[in-house]
Amino acid sequence: MQKFQVTFLPDNLTVSVDKDKTILSAAISAGIYINSTCGGDGICGKCRVVVNKGEVTSQPNGIITALDKKANIYLACLTSIQSDLEVIIPESSRLNFDKLTPGELEERLSGLYSKAEDIWTQDEKIGEKVFKHSPFVTKIYLDLPKPTLEDNLSDLERLYRALRRFEAFPVIQTGLFNIRQLGQLLRDYEWKVTVTLGKRNNTVEIVLIEPKDTTGNNFGLSFDIGTTTISGQLINLNSNKILGTKAAYNQQAAFGGDVITRIVHAAKPDGLKHLHNAVSDTMNQIIRELVLEHNVDLNDVNCMVCSGNTTMIHLLLNMDPAHIRREPYVATANFLPVLRAAEADININSRGLLYCVPGVSSYVGGDTTSGVLSSGIYQKDQPCILIDIGTNGEIVLGNKEFLVACAASAGPAFEGSGVTSGMRASSGAIQKISINKGDFNVKYSTIGDKKPCGICGSGYIDLLSEMLDAGIIDKSGKIKAECSRIRQSDSGLEFVICFGNKTESGRDIVINEADIENLKRSKGAIYSAASILVKHLGLDFTCIHKFYIAGGFGTYLDIDKAIKIGLLPDMERSKFVFIGNSSLAGSRQVLLSAQAMSLADKLASKITYFELSVDPAYMEEYSQALFFPHTDLAKFPTVKFNG
Amino acid sequence: MQKFQVTFLPDNLTVSVDKDKTILSAAISAGIYINSTCGGDGICGKCRVVVNKGEVTSQPNGIITALDKKANIYLACLTSIQSDLEVIIPESSRLNFDKLTPGELEERLSGLYSKAEDIWTQDEKIGEKVFKHSPFVTKIYLDLPKPTLEDNLSDLERLYRALRRFEAFPVIQTGLFNIRQLGQLLRDYEWKVTVTLGKRNNTVEIVLIEPKDTTGNNFGLSFDIGTTTISGQLINLNSNKILGTKAAYNQQAAFGGDVITRIVHAAKPDGLKHLHNAVSDTMNQIIRELVLEHNVDLNDVNCMVCSGNTTMIHLLLNMDPAHIRREPYVATANFLPVLRAAEADININSRGLLYCVPGVSSYVGGDTTSGVLSSGIYQKDQPCILIDIGTNGEIVLGNKEFLVACAASAGPAFEGSGVTSGMRASSGAIQKISINKGDFNVKYSTIGDKKPCGICGSGYIDLLSEMLDAGIIDKSGKIKAECSRIRQSDSGLEFVICFGNKTESGRDIVINEADIENLKRSKGAIYSAASILVKHLGLDFTCIHKFYIAGGFGTYLDIDKAIKIGLLPDMERSKFVFIGNSSLAGSRQVLLSAQAMSLADKLASKITYFELSVDPAYMEEYSQALFFPHTDLAKFPTVKFNG
Repeated sequence: MQKFQVTFLPDNLTVSVDKDKTILSAAISAGIYINSTCGGDGICGKCRVVVNKGEVTSQPNGIITALDKKANIYLACLTSIQSDLEVIIPESSRLNFDKLTPGELEERLSGLYSKAEDIWTQDEKIGEKVFKHSPFVTKIYLDLPKPTLEDNLSDLERLYRALRRFEAFPVIQTGLFNIRQLGQLLRDYEWKVTVTLGKRNNTVEIVLIEPKDTTGNNFGLSFDIGTTTISGQLINLNSNKILGTKAAYNQQAAFGGDVITRIVHAAKPDGLKHLHNAVSDTMNQIIRELVLEHNVDLNDVNCMVCSGNTTMIHLLLNMDPAHIRREPYVATANFLPVLRAAEADININSRGLLYCVPGVSSYVGGDTTSGVLSSGIYQKDQPCILIDIGTNGEIVLGNKEFLVACAASAGPAFEGSGVTSGMRASSGAIQKISINKGDFNVKYSTIGDKKPCGICGSGYIDLLSEMLDAGIIDKSGKIKAECSRIRQSDSGLEFVICFGNKTESGRDIVINEADIENLKRSKGAIYSAASILVKHLGLDFTCIHKFYIAGGFGTYLDIDKAIKIGLLPDMERSKFVFIGNSSLAGSRQVLLSAQAMSLADKLASKITYFELSVDPAYMEEYSQALFFPHTDLAKFPTVKFNG
Repeated sequence: MQKFQVTFLPDNLTVSVDKDKTILSAAISAGIYINSTCGGDGICGKCRVVVNKGEVTSQPNGIITALDKKANIYLACLTSIQSDLEVIIPESSRLNFDKLTPGELEERLSGLYSKAEDIWTQDEKIGEKVFKHSPFVTKIYLDLPKPTLEDNLSDLERLYRALRRFEAFPVIQTGLFNIRQLGQLLRDYEWKVTVTLGKRNNTVEIVLIEPKDTTGNNFGLSFDIGTTTISGQLINLNSNKILGTKAAYNQQAAFGGDVITRIVHAAKPDGLKHLHNAVSDTMNQIIRELVLEHNVDLNDVNCMVCSGNTTMIHLLLNMDPAHIRREPYVATANFLPVLRAAEADININSRGLLYCVPGVSSYVGGDTTSGVLSSGIYQKDQPCILIDIGTNGEIVLGNKEFLVACAASAGPAFEGSGVTSGMRASSGAIQKISINKGDFNVKYSTIGDKKPCGICGSGYIDLLSEMLDAGIIDKSGKIKAECSRIRQSDSGLEFVICFGNKTESGRDIVINEADIENLKRSKGAIYSAASILVKHLGLDFTCIHKFYIAGGFGTYLDIDKAIKIGLLPDMERSKFVFIGNSSLAGSRQVLLSAQAMSLADKLASKITYFELSVDPAYMEEYSQALFFPHTDLAKFPTVKFNG
């Protein structure tokens, strides 16, 4: 097979690849992650690259314009290599980390996390529901009595005896690694050592034995592994203090935007390996930045807890997810043992532990269990709803008596993916929009007050609501008005929110009819799933005590507008509670308390999975929800229209 | 540094070594184990080799005769390499496997093992003391119900549910290795799999998941790892049947005859590695021969249980034994977790489990715990004694109320090591001897009725007793008589048992005054230790209900003669019980029953270690025992002398 050299700029990375391979696959080989929401099908148009030198052949598509062609712009996924190449990957086509400074990110996220924190402090600490501080991994400093002829216990039993004076551990396990070095270590450091203990499947494991007193250095990580976004926090396990939070796009997005395209990709040669590497790379990058910023030695990070949907956890652990998408939709495992992080190629202390919060089913994962845990709905007297608006929209209905969950394939639109100008709620994202009803002039504000880069989830909710109010779109989402901001595009009519002369990239920020359709389906899927679930239990929305909203919206979601577009049911506004990233919050609670770890286990067993697709009423409900706000306006009595 | 090539014959193995290295160290590099009881100090004279070609320099010593020099015979440990060499290693200098046919070995050992078996069947199965058949590793065949939309448990939980229908395991652990392959395996084999479950530190581990029904193939190994001899048995874990038994010299003998010289060697560069490799090589060789002979696939050997003294277990697990010989004599660990055999470089199933029976102290190891278990003295009403006459002579005194143990450095003489013509109780060993009181003519019988190769432990007891009776030696062990069989040697006078024209090697089989001194110290150490232990508890030998004798003597030990030389106390003959290799028997019981495993743990904690060296009366008692039978003849009222 003929081989060619492909050099990627500005990285200046060269890889040798077979003739006829796509530029996208060459980039993956080079370790460069290109945005590819559709998984390489030539549909999403995210993987635009510039071929600077060399010959390529490209499949025809409706995305690359004549102007693009003049500028040598190609879709990486549809363009095959015919000679040595030099390819420029523009910033806008990359799956990169936020360029937010740590301060900006903290500020941006502080709202969210203090909300999650509130639940911890308000609800969890009432009466007997306080979670005792008993982190996943603990350090104990021991100044052991030296052995004598009278007290000649072996080194290991001497260590165990001292540990059991701290706590009556029934079973302590230790690997040969630690035992082999024990004799010399104890004597070299005059019997003063620090033992790192980890909770491991109902036993206690000696993870590490270090010289002297290192109890001050004990850190852990909590993670939410989303299909689109991965968030991680570095936590001081002694003080429970969150040292820092980072979020990044899941680099798996290079292989498709939702779990189904990922599962399909996993079945290709090396597909599982690519997906596994992408998620572990993303997490390792987050971890590296966190420890560097907070001056923590990676060797002092001894454990981590991850929550994610079932497919994400399979990919993290290099487990084949194939059967998740085949009837009867069975995962390899929902409850996983405590592992070493190294087994998932995560770089913390080489013996550090990894726990994945157990999931409920193939489509209701550990992220939902974490959400139920951190939202506290499992202890409410009245029925409550928890919605996590991610790529998979999971919905839980329940209280202290029962918990039922379902999953709506919402798609990543509200995470800013799969829509033309979408982006995550990070620096430069348009998050608030108002449209003048007369001249359709647009006012907006961006996160961090930066030049606009795109539109995040809360921005889209504002936008749709304002376009409805201004009469730019009708209830079906079709663009009806005419003005200078409205023009034809390959994806139907489009409305320009911000012209290129004001944007970061120089390209117009727009919403087109395909985007609107996409967003409508997302909101329809979520609303109808919640509606069916409530009916299934013989209830209606008026019975709901609280409606918890989790997810990556940001803090600026306007409830009235979300109801106006029919994303949320028309309920008393005071019942809605934003809880931010409840999956990440749950991970953190499990990390910090054995009680929470054990409770998460019980909750995952307790939650009943409700399969929407088997309910004949679901498709009807969904079709009715494919309007703004709904076909049946009686369901939205407080919503008023100008149109 | 100048390098030379040394070729060993008849192996035809060549190694490159530095100038001035010894031939012994070159042989070790080549993986050839040469007998070296003294650990390379030039004392034992076991490492005789023939230098066929090349130049060497050799330190002067009293072992190599002028005749030897003419035949180019050197001691490998004292001879340094000065050019490329060709070296012949005679069979007699090697630490090799028995050349017994399987049948001969079985016959030879059957007496011993059926004795141990008797204890199992007679004592252990009385009333509630029956050990339930619950081997270390079990196989369970599962024909799982296929998942449906209604029964959509994940693969792993489906497996757990099915397993828990067999037994209510509280904690089941599974490694990622097994989980990763589970999804495909279940579907490829239509949900019919065999799960191998191992007991692991109070939890149950899924060791393996195999396609189809393989429950018929479940094998385990029990081992006694002695300083001088290693014995292993292959056992069908379904039927409890012992398929075969093998014994071999511990190849560590190349590095010294007792635990102290081994510990000293471990501190040298690569010393620990050499000792570890020697023991694991010996065990792997035993295992390989066992599985080949019995047509068992090594992958179906899923677990093993080892009993050994504390130093042997440290070396097996590559743990530094240095502190065992330094006051206050502390081991790294007496209680070890269940490990994978692969961690000790033992070749069974790559995920197979290894358990070491826990020890009591640095000088009373798991072999003693196993002996207490298999002898059943822990459940007797009356005080009993258990003596294991190995290189380390461990003695336990106790009953169901108390158990006290001590260790006497008996040395390997009764294992046929460290004495001129000594050998293990295997084919060709002289085991019975009678001497005509008139002409000192010798009659003997050998194991397997082969040409005599040397003298085993029971042979030496006969020999000493007969020499005393015939007046060849006096009570101090000095040779007093004169005849054609008695002559001067480098080690004092020597008595020829069998001239070279009748022996396998062509060399005379002899006993000299140094050998007699060696044997006298061994028997004195054992007797005096037992005596001190009995006194320490305020008892005397008349209070002892049973006197269990374990060790490698063979079945032909003559009690009267053992009492006559003062090895055993002068008690009612009916109180003595031979129990063969009680350490191996204990390993087997632990392998076959969880109750025995748990009991071994309790026994190791219960046994009190008594340090002989801190009792001021011990040295006096020992000195008095350095006579045949004893300085104080009143202690041996039934012993009659002709002299």
